[in-house]
Amino acid sequence: MTRLLTLIAAAFLLIAGPLAAQDDSYGQQKAVYHINFDGMSGTSYRSAMGNVQNHINAVGAENIEIAVVMHGDGLGLLMAAKDDDGLQTRIGGLKSQNVRFLICNNTLEGRDIALDDLYDAWDEDVVPSGVAELSKLQQDGYTYIKP
Amino acid sequence: MTRLLTLIAAAFLLIAGPLAAQDDSYGQQKAVYHINFDGMSGTSYRSAMGNVQNHINAVGAENIEIAVVMHGDGLGLLMAAKDDDGLQTRIGGLKSQNVRFLICNNTLEGRDIALDDLYDAWDEDVVPSGVAELSKLQQDGYTYIKP
Amino acid sequence: MTRLLTLIAAAFLLIAGPLAAQDDSYGQQKAVYHINFDGMSGTSYRSAMGNVQNHINAVGAENIEIAVVMHGDGLGLLMAAKDDDGLQTRIGGLKSQNVRFLICNNTLEGRDIALDDLYDAWDEDVVPSGVAELSKLQQDGYTYIKP
Repeated sequence: MTRLLTLIAAAFLLIAGPLAAQDDSYGQQKAVYHINFDGMSGTSYRSAMGNVQNHINAVGAENIEIAVVMHGDGLGLLMAAKDDDGLQTRIGGLKSQNVRFLICNNTLEGRDIALDDLYDAWDEDVVPSGVAELSKLQQDGYTYIKP
Repeated sequence: MTRLLTLIAAAFLLIAGPLAAQDDSYGQQKAVYHINFDGMSGTSYRSAMGNVQNHINAVGAENIEIAVVMHGDGLGLLMAAKDDDGLQTRIGGLKSQNVRFLICNNTLEGRDIALDDLYDAWDEDVVPSGVAELSKLQQDGYTYIKP
Repeated sequence: MTRLLTLIAAAFLLIAGPLAAQDDSYGQQKAVYHINFDGMSGTSYRSAMGNVQNHINAVGAENIEIAVVMHGDGLGLLMAAKDDDGLQTRIGGLKSQNVRFLICNNTLEGRDIALDDLYDAWDEDVVPSGVAELSKLQQDGYTYIKP
């Protein structure tokens, strides 16, 4: 019985945490995160993914549309995730909250990268050009964040 | 008398410098500066603050609304300022020209940072989430600059 | 005859490559690229210029207006180009596709840089302030990309 209560409490905290942090003043938002850096030697990919989760927690998953656009060295995010359980969990969690992870086809072709080299990447995630997609999304009302 | 003239000339230059650089073609502007980097090992905080001042000089303080949004490593700006007279002067000068310095509450809580650890930081400077604030301000018509 | 056919084939590929990559779904775009970094020790200028060319290829030169705004360390792009044939070719190619390269006057004056120190730089390329220009262009409908 104690164990059951503990579980219920844990589940409640898991839900209540993000809810408590949510701020209604943010209203509806759209945001595109621009990832073109090397997360090994430069800014960490984990930190960038944490930014996206904090963004969702603050606004509420039902109030926000987020796209992560990767090109150039930024495809390293999905390469690193192939061997990084923590990053896989983070990315999977974000996808379950409708975050889209978009992959630049110019980079795939220019660097001879296959979708199999990337974690959980599919044909429908590929966009013709990462930078053109950044402009398209901004013209569609997405705000821009370079983490 | 010579000394007085020198003082008047200096005061005139101090005022005329920014005025001369101002360009009416810029009209009214709003801008949010995104600071999430480590200014010690990476891009310098002094340089970023210089960008903000140059921006004001070019547009005119009465024509521009600027917010500096700090999160993650970016709170290092106000930490560094605790022991940096030059940075204090710069930040104080910008605040006197109505630049707002906004602090991410997620970072405060996640890194266990108190407002006392930051230079001239107050409750009203704290926003629930730095990244959500970046989107909010852009949706409110602020242009985005990552220095 | 074989040689002629090879030349024609090469010319065709040169034209067809960009055309094939172009995606009509992108429509009309405007974008400003923000260059304020040191391309020697940091992100490479060649990579940034490659981003701009890929952007044009994806959208079509007739469908896009691009401005490259340089300030601070970013003027290093045109300094590096003085002694870099590859960079000269890239910049010349982009200019022939109507990309504008805008130079911050604050940086010229603050660092005592002459236009002669920069590759193919002219009076009409100089803007009063790089950061104010970034805001102006965004307010004029340009999307923002920090490469």
